[in-house]
Amino acid sequence: MSLLVQKFGGTSVGGVERITAVANNIKKHKDDGHQLVVVVSAMSGETNRLLGLAGDISDNIPMTDQDVLLSTGEQVTIALLSMALKQIGIDADPYCGWQIPITTDSTHAKARILDIKTDQIQTALESNKVVIVAGFQGICQETNRITTLGRGGSDTTAVALAAALKADECQIFTDVDGVYTTDPRVVSNAKRLDKITFEEMLEMASLGSKVLQIRSVEFAGKYQVPLRVLSSFSPGEGTLICVDDDKEQSVEAPLVSGIAFVKDEAKISLLGVPDKPGVAATVLGIISDANIEVDMIVQNISADGESNDFTFTVHRNDMARAVNLLTEGLSDLSIREIKSDDKIAKVSLVGVGMRSHAGIASTMFKTLADLSINIQLITTSEIKISVLVDEKYMELAVRGLHDAFELDQ
Amino acid sequence: MSLLVQKFGGTSVGGVERITAVANNIKKHKDDGHQLVVVVSAMSGETNRLLGLAGDISDNIPMTDQDVLLSTGEQVTIALLSMALKQIGIDADPYCGWQIPITTDSTHAKARILDIKTDQIQTALESNKVVIVAGFQGICQETNRITTLGRGGSDTTAVALAAALKADECQIFTDVDGVYTTDPRVVSNAKRLDKITFEEMLEMASLGSKVLQIRSVEFAGKYQVPLRVLSSFSPGEGTLICVDDDKEQSVEAPLVSGIAFVKDEAKISLLGVPDKPGVAATVLGIISDANIEVDMIVQNISADGESNDFTFTVHRNDMARAVNLLTEGLSDLSIREIKSDDKIAKVSLVGVGMRSHAGIASTMFKTLADLSINIQLITTSEIKISVLVDEKYMELAVRGLHDAFELDQ
Repeated sequence: MSLLVQKFGGTSVGGVERITAVANNIKKHKDDGHQLVVVVSAMSGETNRLLGLAGDISDNIPMTDQDVLLSTGEQVTIALLSMALKQIGIDADPYCGWQIPITTDSTHAKARILDIKTDQIQTALESNKVVIVAGFQGICQETNRITTLGRGGSDTTAVALAAALKADECQIFTDVDGVYTTDPRVVSNAKRLDKITFEEMLEMASLGSKVLQIRSVEFAGKYQVPLRVLSSFSPGEGTLICVDDDKEQSVEAPLVSGIAFVKDEAKISLLGVPDKPGVAATVLGIISDANIEVDMIVQNISADGESNDFTFTVHRNDMARAVNLLTEGLSDLSIREIKSDDKIAKVSLVGVGMRSHAGIASTMFKTLADLSINIQLITTSEIKISVLVDEKYMELAVRGLHDAFELDQ
Repeated sequence: MSLLVQKFGGTSVGGVERITAVANNIKKHKDDGHQLVVVVSAMSGETNRLLGLAGDISDNIPMTDQDVLLSTGEQVTIALLSMALKQIGIDADPYCGWQIPITTDSTHAKARILDIKTDQIQTALESNKVVIVAGFQGICQETNRITTLGRGGSDTTAVALAAALKADECQIFTDVDGVYTTDPRVVSNAKRLDKITFEEMLEMASLGSKVLQIRSVEFAGKYQVPLRVLSSFSPGEGTLICVDDDKEQSVEAPLVSGIAFVKDEAKISLLGVPDKPGVAATVLGIISDANIEVDMIVQNISADGESNDFTFTVHRNDMARAVNLLTEGLSDLSIREIKSDDKIAKVSLVGVGMRSHAGIASTMFKTLADLSINIQLITTSEIKISVLVDEKYMELAVRGLHDAFELDQ
């Protein structure tokens, strides 16, 4: 008998029929003898409906009130799922965040979980009940106000519950059947991974694989909660996200686990930056003061040997603003030129196997060269190599690399 | 400065525009210097939408889950109203039932309020905030479960809050501008009453004037909370429901305050019931065991002087079942005949002034006789006289009595 925390997202509970299907899915696991804690999101479309009402009333929606509003979405789902389970003979207890309670800080709309009381859940499980918990929501005990956890909050709720309950596995049911070596829409023979490490998943997630929210993966990694991504629409084992050791022991670790890519960044280059201390800090200070997030950062000695070229990437929507701020803010420094380009894509190899194997970067660069794809920027970390290329070559690069590293094997 | 509890029902908050109008209404009272606690219902249509979802999932909806589901309706409204108030510069705090908390017993779907904690409300009022409370809902502290109060629950919430806070007045905003001498759709010159006593209002409410729920009037009467019914759509003083003394002291008490009528009852007569002890109990026992509510009960000695005629009324929907039960259950008693009729209407005069004035009944009966309306049954209480007539004469009877007692004056 295992204790499983299962999370079903908005599309999985998107209507009365889907909720009934989820109930049947739960019944199967229950009949297999597992203890189940089920976390659900709002029915798909509900959050937008509620935000639409709010938007019609206010042009400056207070986040405290928005949390009261949006938290009703999951509350509706827990009630309906509880009814659906009882309808097929499974006893269940539905809980809102405040009832557990799942306590958070007071940062409305993106609160952080502080603590989860598990006594009521344990008692219900011991009475052979399925415990249903509204995802995405909690309560700030100081203010007695409902809070929400922000984007992907239901995943976070599930992982946090699994950690607090020391569950055997946290299963995230989605509309995909696992994590793939890369996006199957780009590479048709992309392969589902049986296992992936938390670190790899973090890199994949932050690089655009939208299967799981970064925060929930971080959380699962921190508390070493085995996390499984699987489909709520079709059977299958999905992908297990686990700690490094588990993976390396159990399988011949491949060098590269997957290829991630994003197209939503823009590149800004400062050419001929004076080579003196504090300049990088000045540049990034201007950007971060404007709440613009920076992703890749590269600095190189320039051709003249006396100044630097400094390049970084920001979200495309922030490019024009960033360039304007820098043009104004850096007028005192004798910078030769500020260049920007939003027709770029970032392609990344991810894999814990890369740590101990040389030659991966050169294979990557050779593959791109053979395809006549120019590399504009390179950054590396222990388990990742990222390159910037012209956006029109992105799909070509991804397919070429997928072949070169034999990820379809 | 007065402390007012104001309640806005479903049609008053039926859409974004209506909610904004309610916010403006609240602002006016706030600008007049009043402290305000505002109770709201679910937006009209929302409760039925949610029940529809539940009905598609379950053919035996558990009331615990239904309460979790339905309580989201008011939660949406408190959030939206709070936004609407802040949008026009009024600070407000929205509260669900469990946040106050409004504690109830565990009778889901028709829970009774046990206690209301007022500290948070007091603190918010002292900070010059408008307090918004979700009507219709509470929490059972023993089980930590959300409960709802059943039909008209938001009125009850408002009255209970007014009692707990010792408010100066509890104002129920509806889609009518007060309580009338009778239904203006039947008698065009029906007059709005400035004042009516709790007892009169109870009789009017239980007799079919749907302005207020009986339970909230009972509650207001018990705790002597001055209750005012007024329109959320048009200005006006509405009708104040107050204690007997207030009314009699302040105005020349009219003999009759109003005329109520209902068409949803059916009459069942047992003719030739043996005149011996216990028969009435047997008859009514059969009916009440089947959970059928009985309204009027009359027993008369029959023409032969040796048996009784026993007549009572039930809801029309229960008539056939009641007759069947009696035919079976009373086969041992040699009852001559069981007759039933669902083409009847009950018309009642209500007024505290009737207590001390003779002649009202005879005026009533004479008026009906002049109109050639046959009276089938009569019951009286201290402040009410009810008659059963053929349903096709109901409007005629109401208009005739309204004229006879000069209620348009």
